[in-house]
Amino acid sequence: MWCSNDYLGMGQHPKVIKAMVQALKLYGAGSGGTRNIGGNTNLHVQLENELADLHNKEAALVCTSGYVANEAGLSTLPSLFPQGAIYFSDEENHASMIYGMRYSKLGKKDIRVFKHNDIKHLESLLEASNNDIEDKDKVKIIVFESVYSMSGTISPVETIKDIAKRYGALTYIDEVHAVGLYGKRGGGVTQERGIDIDIISGTLGKAFGTHGGYLAGSSLIIDCIRSYSPSFIFTTSLPPVTVAGSIASIQHVKESEKERKLLHEHSKFMKKRLQEENLPVLPSASHIVPLFIGNPNVCKEVSDVFFKEYQIYVQPINYPTVPREQELLRLSPGPLHTHDKIENFVAAAKKIWTRFSLVNYEELQERLKVRIHQ
Amino acid sequence: MWCSNDYLGMGQHPKVIKAMVQALKLYGAGSGGTRNIGGNTNLHVQLENELADLHNKEAALVCTSGYVANEAGLSTLPSLFPQGAIYFSDEENHASMIYGMRYSKLGKKDIRVFKHNDIKHLESLLEASNNDIEDKDKVKIIVFESVYSMSGTISPVETIKDIAKRYGALTYIDEVHAVGLYGKRGGGVTQERGIDIDIISGTLGKAFGTHGGYLAGSSLIIDCIRSYSPSFIFTTSLPPVTVAGSIASIQHVKESEKERKLLHEHSKFMKKRLQEENLPVLPSASHIVPLFIGNPNVCKEVSDVFFKEYQIYVQPINYPTVPREQELLRLSPGPLHTHDKIENFVAAAKKIWTRFSLVNYEELQERLKVRIHQ
Repeated sequence: MWCSNDYLGMGQHPKVIKAMVQALKLYGAGSGGTRNIGGNTNLHVQLENELADLHNKEAALVCTSGYVANEAGLSTLPSLFPQGAIYFSDEENHASMIYGMRYSKLGKKDIRVFKHNDIKHLESLLEASNNDIEDKDKVKIIVFESVYSMSGTISPVETIKDIAKRYGALTYIDEVHAVGLYGKRGGGVTQERGIDIDIISGTLGKAFGTHGGYLAGSSLIIDCIRSYSPSFIFTTSLPPVTVAGSIASIQHVKESEKERKLLHEHSKFMKKRLQEENLPVLPSASHIVPLFIGNPNVCKEVSDVFFKEYQIYVQPINYPTVPREQELLRLSPGPLHTHDKIENFVAAAKKIWTRFSLVNYEELQERLKVRIHQ
Repeated sequence: MWCSNDYLGMGQHPKVIKAMVQALKLYGAGSGGTRNIGGNTNLHVQLENELADLHNKEAALVCTSGYVANEAGLSTLPSLFPQGAIYFSDEENHASMIYGMRYSKLGKKDIRVFKHNDIKHLESLLEASNNDIEDKDKVKIIVFESVYSMSGTISPVETIKDIAKRYGALTYIDEVHAVGLYGKRGGGVTQERGIDIDIISGTLGKAFGTHGGYLAGSSLIIDCIRSYSPSFIFTTSLPPVTVAGSIASIQHVKESEKERKLLHEHSKFMKKRLQEENLPVLPSASHIVPLFIGNPNVCKEVSDVFFKEYQIYVQPINYPTVPREQELLRLSPGPLHTHDKIENFVAAAKKIWTRFSLVNYEELQERLKVRIHQ
């Protein structure tokens, strides 16, 4: 299995399973209601405390998914500013962020998109806004991710923070593909680099191996979102069993660096081995290993051959998850993917690449050069 | 505990717990990805088959919550009709439905609200639309619930279906407070009355005792929503453990009428006993037992006294869940609430009602008469 977001294998960790079996027997299968009516438990409050602590924030709010956390946070945030607000959004932001902003009270002209990780473009938009009399009182909010899930790029968090300070902007970062994996205690790229971002959105459904999403920030902002977001208020809370597993997982990941170190070691080894075998691994600063294909039908066919002939499970990544002609296999080696397993994957890939005459690493480099020169 | 939506106590059912413990050990804590990438399992497909069968529909689509199911369904539906569409929506529809419609491509003028359960008003809106040249080619979609969660009213499903036929409208019903509880196999009010509604939205987090939501309908409509809804596509799927519990619960509830019968018997007994003791139970055609208070601060205080002095847990229902001055306690007796427990609640309520000099049943009847005459 090469395409799971259970990055650290925590979904199989005995501590997590044990906590969940106990919670199942004590609390039953579901929560039975919304957080405000019948679905609040000590466990929900404890989980929010764990998350606030993980990110060194005053408070956290657990939502039913990472998608809902982004949608709830970004659709609600502008309504807290009667003077108006402007979003400055990275063009590669996740669908949940795009829809969250779109569902806010802001009109199209107050959602401004900057080119992916392009600091100069972001700065020019902020500068233009500073010079625009209509924008004078509006709160600026920069919205971006730390690890971009499909390309594996990492954003220049420090620089964005500097710019935000200079322009008096709030910052909102999606760390769903980074929490648990980066930083001394798994607090994400912001923790690794010691950068304070105002609002962090994270997930329990990837490195923590369970299910659900959350926001972390100041007590004031978190309380406002808790009080105003319909997708938080009017929905059944996460089952206590999921919450208990999440607490056990976060507590382990905060303390243990073993899984994180193995993940990064395996990811580096896999990138190196693919490149050595002339297989078209894309440049990725993160743990994610994207393997270029560039055609949706072939991508699906290659995935099928991996599964049927090699018992290797890796789903094709096609449009709309990536732009057309950038179809790829997205590999996520974790601590449980030993060097043997990686060699096994590389050997299978070599045979498949030859058989389908696919773009190899050298050819990919040429294409990327052309793209840069254009 | 009097305010849980685990209406049948299925969240504690040994069959459900057993299936979940097994799934936990076999599949781990989370699903590890979206339905299209790493988070699909046989269990997800099996659950959708169970749900399609429950509602006698061709297909079903499982979402991460009932909120998301409504949001996904109603925000996506109009984009399937290039000729345009018009929603006709009951004014008491749930927040998830209101936001779903609002997030669709339709403008405000194509979301038309009819008075709660007011057939004449609905018909007059449809008639007006028929006579409007601008509406000529647009698909009409009537959006309503079967059991309204706070007032406990039930909609005239048959009449709405008749009207829909007459005006060639599609029908969308939210059965989240009815699935598991009404109909021979727990297929909801539509099943009880043998009425075929085009799209049914339901939940796993109430009568089925677990977590998640779903849509059921024709294969074509379900496939369209599956293919176009961002809140379905870009989110981690439900954990296999939750899915396994849901399957076990649905299979039990389809076969066993015992829990349903006890629920309705207890609900009727409780309404009768409250009325006999002059306690202000509101008229409710469903299993829900709303107890009127009419003041938000008193509502909270009464809830606290119930808990602190009588170890009875029932949360206050205040604005925005109900309109202001209609604050209430919403009681949901289930099969596990024996007559003894009901008598115990009624005795506590009597003391509290006297102590706080609250509106009693007779006074409430006077108020309701006044309201009707206004």
